[in-house]
Amino acid sequence: MSYNRFVLAPDSFKGSMDARKICEIMAAAIGRHFPCAEIISVPVADGGEGTVDCFLEACGGRRISVRAAGPFFDETDAFYGILPDNETAVIELAACAGLPKVGENKRPDIATTYGVGQLICHAVDHGCHKIILGLGGSATNDGGCGMAAAVGVRFYDETGKQFIPTGATLCRIAAIDASGAQTRLSGVDVTVMCDVDNPLYGPSGAAAVFGPQKGAGAGMVQLLDDGLHHLAIRMEPILGRDIANLPGGGAAGGAGAGAAVFLSAHLKRGIETVLDTVGIDSLLGPDCCVLTGEGKVDAQTLRGKVVSGVAARCKQAGVPLLVFCGIAEEDISLLYENGVLAVFPVNRVKRPLEELLSTCETDLSQTVDAAVRLLKI
Amino acid sequence: MSYNRFVLAPDSFKGSMDARKICEIMAAAIGRHFPCAEIISVPVADGGEGTVDCFLEACGGRRISVRAAGPFFDETDAFYGILPDNETAVIELAACAGLPKVGENKRPDIATTYGVGQLICHAVDHGCHKIILGLGGSATNDGGCGMAAAVGVRFYDETGKQFIPTGATLCRIAAIDASGAQTRLSGVDVTVMCDVDNPLYGPSGAAAVFGPQKGAGAGMVQLLDDGLHHLAIRMEPILGRDIANLPGGGAAGGAGAGAAVFLSAHLKRGIETVLDTVGIDSLLGPDCCVLTGEGKVDAQTLRGKVVSGVAARCKQAGVPLLVFCGIAEEDISLLYENGVLAVFPVNRVKRPLEELLSTCETDLSQTVDAAVRLLKI
Repeated sequence: MSYNRFVLAPDSFKGSMDARKICEIMAAAIGRHFPCAEIISVPVADGGEGTVDCFLEACGGRRISVRAAGPFFDETDAFYGILPDNETAVIELAACAGLPKVGENKRPDIATTYGVGQLICHAVDHGCHKIILGLGGSATNDGGCGMAAAVGVRFYDETGKQFIPTGATLCRIAAIDASGAQTRLSGVDVTVMCDVDNPLYGPSGAAAVFGPQKGAGAGMVQLLDDGLHHLAIRMEPILGRDIANLPGGGAAGGAGAGAAVFLSAHLKRGIETVLDTVGIDSLLGPDCCVLTGEGKVDAQTLRGKVVSGVAARCKQAGVPLLVFCGIAEEDISLLYENGVLAVFPVNRVKRPLEELLSTCETDLSQTVDAAVRLLKI
Repeated sequence: MSYNRFVLAPDSFKGSMDARKICEIMAAAIGRHFPCAEIISVPVADGGEGTVDCFLEACGGRRISVRAAGPFFDETDAFYGILPDNETAVIELAACAGLPKVGENKRPDIATTYGVGQLICHAVDHGCHKIILGLGGSATNDGGCGMAAAVGVRFYDETGKQFIPTGATLCRIAAIDASGAQTRLSGVDVTVMCDVDNPLYGPSGAAAVFGPQKGAGAGMVQLLDDGLHHLAIRMEPILGRDIANLPGGGAAGGAGAGAAVFLSAHLKRGIETVLDTVGIDSLLGPDCCVLTGEGKVDAQTLRGKVVSGVAARCKQAGVPLLVFCGIAEEDISLLYENGVLAVFPVNRVKRPLEELLSTCETDLSQTVDAAVRLLKI
């Protein structure tokens, strides 16, 4: 079999190598043996920091530098990407409102996503009418109200005074006028990359689950959760349906819900967004082979994100998929039934004999199995 | 590519799995994907314990049980194998004179290879005229004189009295009459499997290098070495050439030299003996793939025994060779130039992050490389 095209779509190996590094290593090894093959690197963005660069690497395009509001309304150096179609902008929330922007000063009660809305406006003003918005790594809990305000949504308190709500002041929202944003974003299609299923509020909501890592103690979590619940009630008439059960509404301190309501955004898994944006289905042909990977492959991998997403596309297209990983556990047969051709762990370390003895036979069996799978095609 | 035949020729993974177990695991994995392929297991014998069983597994044949002299001239249960041609016998020295036969009672000064000679006679009497003799794991240091005596060589001391020399009494040999053995073994071709290059005596000779693990202290090592030196002087007229520099003469307490002199044996690497006996060259065709393996693969592997031997045959035949191993070090490019298609380490263990970081990129690179090599064929 002669392969003319390789698509590299790995997840990061958590803590050791990011997806771009993995693509680079894979491409080098492939290039040694298939010097004429086309190699398409699709380092998989997770919506957090690095998302824009991943898209630019996969698709090409330009990085646009912009000054925009930081997490505390202070101006900061931000950026986004415009893909080669000049119609699609990729924006990562982390560029304005990410945790690295606040350093030790973690204050989800007063942090805002306002800058994210400014980036959206900038992109729209430059002709983009498709926005891909990555929500990972946020320092905020404002339900996306800052972002909404920047694109024209007006929030009023009990006294009729307009304000920009943050985590602590969500509960002061008395009325919302979303008409300005609807005008501003008319004809603009927003896709939110969202890999969490958490709802906006409640025990598994944004504040309860993600608040603590953003610096909220127990009391503040309660305050933030109350605020998001209050916001939900105010947003529901605009969305026209129940918000409490919107999966992913709780992403990025409620910015998932805010995007759905104020930007009419579709929430979509990150991997699906990436694969669709690069046009994966049209890339996968009979002369194509796909490589992916993640730190650990086991029975849970199919419930995960990257490998399962890539495998589904490969299975549909009938294209071989090789999975590389740090650890591969014993029960990976389900992967082999779901689009994966072969799984290769990469460990080549010396281990103490007493450790080896318990696994050496299974290890050998599974590696021979994987290699023979490649011989078979 | 459709493969119709797989040849499995692994070394053991030292300390964790023997070659037969590895063949079994490989065969199972291959059978899952190539259910119609012929699978030929050639677990590679090293000449020591298990050699006969390895040959019987690779070639078929029968195991013959015989009573013969043990290491201290006591009768013991021994055995050898006759291959399906009914002409070739496989004998392991360890069956009569191996370390497990002496237990804690390690006495290389008085241990004998006499039983080995009895096995040879038994095989010859049953029509075998090809003898494959494995020398590994011996408890003896008798220069093969016991074995020689059993096939008809006569050893005389200064007083003209006939005796059977052992390690401690080699120095008493005054005269040797080898004519009886020449008659007894007329038309019999003896091949000694020999993977050590040590000479018969001297600083890297049998006594100095292997004596200690057979129980010899410093004083006894000197005694044994003197004896082997004395034996060499007495043997040289029979061999008709220099014995001091015979590579492998020091195998099995000098039984390598004894076999060369008294049995007119050829000394041959174990792997070459095995591969020739199974007729590897005629097995390797265009629809064939070979699997081998060893515990650790590195730049030294080519100087080693099994993998290098198998690789040379595969290279000559133009047949793909996959190598599986516990550890694969970085510098394996030489293997790829010498008959190896791809190297796969089998480790799939979880490792501490700090350990991973130093090797993860090379690990990934090399594993992708190996898999892509398989895609290429």
